[in-house]
Amino acid sequence: MTSTLSRAIAGYPNRFDPGAASELPETLRETIRRRDEVLGPGYTLIYREPVEFVSGHGAHLIDRDGHDYLDAYNNVPCVGHAHPHVAEAVSRQVATVNTNTRYVEESLVAYAERLLATFPDGLGRLSLACSGSEANDLAVRVAKFHTGGTGIIVTRWAYHGITSEVASFSPTLGAGSSLGPNVRVIDPPDPRLAPPGVALAEHMRRQVRGAIDDLERHGFRLAALITDGAYSSDGIFTDPVGYLKDMLEEVHAAGGVYIADEVQAGFARLGETMWGFSRHGALPDIVTMGKPMGNGMPISGVVFRPEVSDEFGRNVRYFNTFGGSSIPVAAGAAVLDVFEEENVRQRVLENGTALRKGLEEITKDSAHVAEVRGSGLYVGVEIVEDRQAGEPDRARAEDVVNDLRDRRVLISGTGPAANVLKIRPPLAFTAADVTRFLETFAEVAKARL
Amino acid sequence: MTSTLSRAIAGYPNRFDPGAASELPETLRETIRRRDEVLGPGYTLIYREPVEFVSGHGAHLIDRDGHDYLDAYNNVPCVGHAHPHVAEAVSRQVATVNTNTRYVEESLVAYAERLLATFPDGLGRLSLACSGSEANDLAVRVAKFHTGGTGIIVTRWAYHGITSEVASFSPTLGAGSSLGPNVRVIDPPDPRLAPPGVALAEHMRRQVRGAIDDLERHGFRLAALITDGAYSSDGIFTDPVGYLKDMLEEVHAAGGVYIADEVQAGFARLGETMWGFSRHGALPDIVTMGKPMGNGMPISGVVFRPEVSDEFGRNVRYFNTFGGSSIPVAAGAAVLDVFEEENVRQRVLENGTALRKGLEEITKDSAHVAEVRGSGLYVGVEIVEDRQAGEPDRARAEDVVNDLRDRRVLISGTGPAANVLKIRPPLAFTAADVTRFLETFAEVAKARL
Repeated sequence: MTSTLSRAIAGYPNRFDPGAASELPETLRETIRRRDEVLGPGYTLIYREPVEFVSGHGAHLIDRDGHDYLDAYNNVPCVGHAHPHVAEAVSRQVATVNTNTRYVEESLVAYAERLLATFPDGLGRLSLACSGSEANDLAVRVAKFHTGGTGIIVTRWAYHGITSEVASFSPTLGAGSSLGPNVRVIDPPDPRLAPPGVALAEHMRRQVRGAIDDLERHGFRLAALITDGAYSSDGIFTDPVGYLKDMLEEVHAAGGVYIADEVQAGFARLGETMWGFSRHGALPDIVTMGKPMGNGMPISGVVFRPEVSDEFGRNVRYFNTFGGSSIPVAAGAAVLDVFEEENVRQRVLENGTALRKGLEEITKDSAHVAEVRGSGLYVGVEIVEDRQAGEPDRARAEDVVNDLRDRRVLISGTGPAANVLKIRPPLAFTAADVTRFLETFAEVAKARL
Repeated sequence: MTSTLSRAIAGYPNRFDPGAASELPETLRETIRRRDEVLGPGYTLIYREPVEFVSGHGAHLIDRDGHDYLDAYNNVPCVGHAHPHVAEAVSRQVATVNTNTRYVEESLVAYAERLLATFPDGLGRLSLACSGSEANDLAVRVAKFHTGGTGIIVTRWAYHGITSEVASFSPTLGAGSSLGPNVRVIDPPDPRLAPPGVALAEHMRRQVRGAIDDLERHGFRLAALITDGAYSSDGIFTDPVGYLKDMLEEVHAAGGVYIADEVQAGFARLGETMWGFSRHGALPDIVTMGKPMGNGMPISGVVFRPEVSDEFGRNVRYFNTFGGSSIPVAAGAAVLDVFEEENVRQRVLENGTALRKGLEEITKDSAHVAEVRGSGLYVGVEIVEDRQAGEPDRARAEDVVNDLRDRRVLISGTGPAANVLKIRPPLAFTAADVTRFLETFAEVAKARL
């Protein structure tokens, strides 16, 4: 089956190879066979031996045999799997009523006020949708309407979602999914890619300027620069900060807007701030958010500067049936409760720092680790053939991922060469979880790194 | 505020006019003011006096003062507001675990098998997403990939959703949202629009053929014809049936595919069958579904003929974080349980017939009712200035809608002239609900129709 898959699909990090299914336990093999029959070849599993979970709590997932896995990968259950406060809020709402934004909903208004209060002044309007893809789709639609332009700038291996529009500026989807003629790509903010003697901020500024020039030369006026605050699919680049302001100057000078895609970086993932862009001291025109927003309940959002969005609102009908309906809003509000009650951001900062320091310590003498990077509870470990040459080593990275999985610790891979370990646990990750993670990682590193 | 709104927005049926807010009770006015502040002008309320509900059961919604409203409008809570079986399934799942399709999920496989079993042979693959918009976006993306064409045919006032791509073939969104150059519109299947002596099936066939010719003349090969099985926004046209097969012959002859948008018509809404297209004896290439699928939980789906979807699946990465995750799937499965246990389709057929007959009886001598039409629990009542001339009477239709709302019965309007009463209750609508509806409608009709 693998042979008929395109490189783009086969290139997905840590993808389960259906051709290897014969090595799996009989019951798992049979479930996967039935799954393929109804879902078809587009549904990719991960790990050499895929896994099924029947319950969870905190950063822990439990399989059918009662084994406890440490989840260091899933960002959606941000305050923890099956968090009781969120579960209770959803249970109450689903047993009470679920109306939509055609009706007055005090709970929606209160939630919007509360969420907007986490943003800097100037970002004053909220629209709600179901998925990060819908959020980014709406953001770009509004950006095009507002600017009159259509040009889009993204990073080289960016992922922003899977609607037709958003896929057209998500190069990570690979050759099977064409980029739009109106799309230009730039390097992610990897300081190693800047020319000798050129600071990162200047390198990023020049790239944006160059992309705008090239768009204009082809008749496209700039609509938006959109970047993922953690550059997740590019390989996770969170530091240094500050260059974003330089990029935005070029974007605004060309009449475009900046969309901060906070689907990954938002909700305190990076520890220092609630929103990734704040670390740069920059003010976006539009901010999108999704995955962790409802701790698993489908809810996403777009926050706008009113000057950018209100004219669209007055001229274009936009009604999202589920976006802003009572159940997702109840989940979103409960997540904000937990952020306050458990001081989630502070926990992320502390445990993230401990996690990164531990990884640096374990890998400091490894010939196969080029960098440990990240912020808060988003960490990337770049695996290479040789630290000097720096050639990506995907096979070794996937060995590490699967060795960890066999020891019941879940991470995955990312980056254009799929050679960056992606460590992105629920924000419920505790100090004890950090310890278990590092102990297990050290065992695997001994053999592989 | 109204004066700055475009015609497209102002044209939305039964839209609340913010300019009239000063007539509302103080607390409601204040909530609406706060709402406008955080959500902006794009968020439209309905009714002259908007309403808020704090609980619900069956086809009933309860406001803050304890008043019981009969809901004859909302299709999302299909098995009834806050249905206990669905609430229990969601509550259990949200307190247990929520994983996604990167992991094996027996519950997802079982649900997919069960849902696909409601489709005719040949429609064998399911993809899951969050909203009807995402479903239609994916459907068209697959259709374009499969056919190599880009041309889209829709009905004149169709609504298929709000992603950038789907909005480009949703003419009901109005002038603020441009149709794509690759989009052609045809009349809905309103027998009155066929030329004298031409049968509806022949009229529809000719229109499809004409649209294909025009697309080809402009260099666009056909990708898909997509139609809403109830032609909701066109004004609700469910009968006669049969013409769909004629349309499909033209579509297939041109190398295109047919997408049945069952977001409105699906899940037994039309009473006779689980899926609207089955009433025509036709087999679509792709079927999309959404709103009622999870009784309020955000979940949508796309069902494909494998020959149409598998090549896309092998070549294009598509991962929908929430689509197919445990909580929405639990809701979807619980809805199917209720369909079986309560024999929902049969109830829809019986109560829908009683509802339509009652409406026909009440309006049979009215000078202002051109037609009562529909199937199952989807009924349209076309309001005109005069039955002979047939000029649409939007103002009268909105008077009826708001008189009913003041008597605590909820419906709304539809159609390009917003003059068709849209009666589309939860499928939990009982015989007693039909009686209450007809009694209230008769009172309003006495004054208005």
